[in-house]
Amino acid sequence: MSMLRIAVDVMGGDIGVKATIPAIVTLAKRYPEIQFQLYGESAVESQLPQKPSLDNINYISTPANSVSMSDDPIYALRHKRNSSMAQAIVAVSEGKADGCISAGNTGALVAMGLHFLKTYKGIDRPALCQAMPTAKGHSYMLDLGANVDCSPKQLLQFAYLGTALCKVLDGQSKPVLRLLNIGGEAFKGPSLVQDTASILAQTQSLNYQGFIEGNEIYQGVADVIVCDGFAGNIALKASEGVARLVTNSFKQVFEENIYTRLMALLSKPALRRWQLKMNPDRYNGAYLLGLQGTVVKSHGGANQHQFGYALEMLIQQLQRQHIRSMEQSLEAILKQ
Amino acid sequence: MSMLRIAVDVMGGDIGVKATIPAIVTLAKRYPEIQFQLYGESAVESQLPQKPSLDNINYISTPANSVSMSDDPIYALRHKRNSSMAQAIVAVSEGKADGCISAGNTGALVAMGLHFLKTYKGIDRPALCQAMPTAKGHSYMLDLGANVDCSPKQLLQFAYLGTALCKVLDGQSKPVLRLLNIGGEAFKGPSLVQDTASILAQTQSLNYQGFIEGNEIYQGVADVIVCDGFAGNIALKASEGVARLVTNSFKQVFEENIYTRLMALLSKPALRRWQLKMNPDRYNGAYLLGLQGTVVKSHGGANQHQFGYALEMLIQQLQRQHIRSMEQSLEAILKQ
Repeated sequence: MSMLRIAVDVMGGDIGVKATIPAIVTLAKRYPEIQFQLYGESAVESQLPQKPSLDNINYISTPANSVSMSDDPIYALRHKRNSSMAQAIVAVSEGKADGCISAGNTGALVAMGLHFLKTYKGIDRPALCQAMPTAKGHSYMLDLGANVDCSPKQLLQFAYLGTALCKVLDGQSKPVLRLLNIGGEAFKGPSLVQDTASILAQTQSLNYQGFIEGNEIYQGVADVIVCDGFAGNIALKASEGVARLVTNSFKQVFEENIYTRLMALLSKPALRRWQLKMNPDRYNGAYLLGLQGTVVKSHGGANQHQFGYALEMLIQQLQRQHIRSMEQSLEAILKQ
Repeated sequence: MSMLRIAVDVMGGDIGVKATIPAIVTLAKRYPEIQFQLYGESAVESQLPQKPSLDNINYISTPANSVSMSDDPIYALRHKRNSSMAQAIVAVSEGKADGCISAGNTGALVAMGLHFLKTYKGIDRPALCQAMPTAKGHSYMLDLGANVDCSPKQLLQFAYLGTALCKVLDGQSKPVLRLLNIGGEAFKGPSLVQDTASILAQTQSLNYQGFIEGNEIYQGVADVIVCDGFAGNIALKASEGVARLVTNSFKQVFEENIYTRLMALLSKPALRRWQLKMNPDRYNGAYLLGLQGTVVKSHGGANQHQFGYALEMLIQQLQRQHIRSMEQSLEAILKQ
């Protein structure tokens, strides 16, 4: 395998370079065999540590015209094609990088991904897809926020994409597909969900098994969960919020007095295992699935550690060369 | 204050009488001054414990025609008006009970509530509203699943209802209102959210402060959070699911070996405080807000303990006579 090359939009996200640069430096040390192409404004380059230790980091200066979190996606696509985000995607489309990552404006990333990379045949728009932790392993859920007003046809396409990804990454032959809804009964849910359910049930190439409720996302009863980007994003972020509330309240209780602090200290190894497993930071990083190229979106509010998890997810999947088989997997499903 | 009277649909919910009856018996002992009117099929009455200890429980037999979880709401309203659910609501509408509770079919409860109790003036449909725990206290969120296809006008009405409830229950003079969305920027979100935001911003009687994201639900940045019933239900249930995943994984880690078990034992008082605070069971029970009468909906999958929490919530609010002021509070807002 030739050297892996990863393009990073260092300007993206609420925290920006203060999160992305330290994360990249850490991973560049951990993965000396990978080339990191950093796209960012020239003023930022000075924030990188001294050169010698970082042979595998290349900095490509872009104009001071970065995409902001508040840019309208269409505006960004028209006026910011020389931005760090656009250039990181262009690097993938031109074959200069094997994949790219950004914590920037989701809408702009989708617009630029569509423009520079195009979608797979049979897919109109990409969807954000993430492996959600479950009691039994994980479930791929999409869309998590790339498309807010969806049609049944789009949800069908998301079902194809999620099924193809699950086959490629987990080697599942018939991934169990479910549709996110507010009840298990057939008559429940809004018209979008009702109409999509009829289509999915008639689609032979998919292993559609009915509805899934919000609480069941984490029970491991599906391999692939499909929803519109609005509901998906709300589910994802509400989950993150409650996980933080629960773990923070745990910390508070164990900081109450000297006895509880001692208990926390003595339980440290077990608590660390628990925190590692349940740390919401670990679940940062979603594929912008459906594009002819690998694009990972980090949470916009990601800090250094969270951005590092998303970057490492991208690295590991590229190393396994898994994502490259995505197109064939999708084609095989669509042919059925 | 005269004796409080609470009507309970004992047939509702996935578990049904095995959850409702034991919960009612426990609370009937704890609150001997409250009259519990149990509506249920005659065969169920035999499951009650011996009479003497339960002077404050009255059993009212209903025909074997209970609303099932899979009944279409319109069908239930037409053909099951003599059911336990319908009769519990009728008891409120006829002034025989001060409030009622059901763990049954949400759609049927909404249809029957609308039919027998009617909505407040200016409100078209009721919404499920619950106090969500936050880092600073709680936020009232609605709708949590009573209305799946909503209009901006309905969301405006939910905003009125939530604001009125927060004024009544918490005495807040200008509750901070936010709209659930997938980003903080003005251009983000589906058309429903965009259109609702414009209306809310123009409504002087509401203290609208913009969007709130899923993870912020638990940060305490709003007193009232408005959303459509689909998104709200998904947020609520996803949160419940992740809270269970996190706490269950905690138990697993501390059952790993004799040392971790000892630590768990020694930390029991602190762990109990944490569990009490974060126990998802505690957050069962939502108001069906907007009806001219107090109706509480318990989670359909509620077990005995969870149903008990919802019932106790109803009792405590009725005892404080808070909910009776709801109509005046709403009228005052609508007059502005």
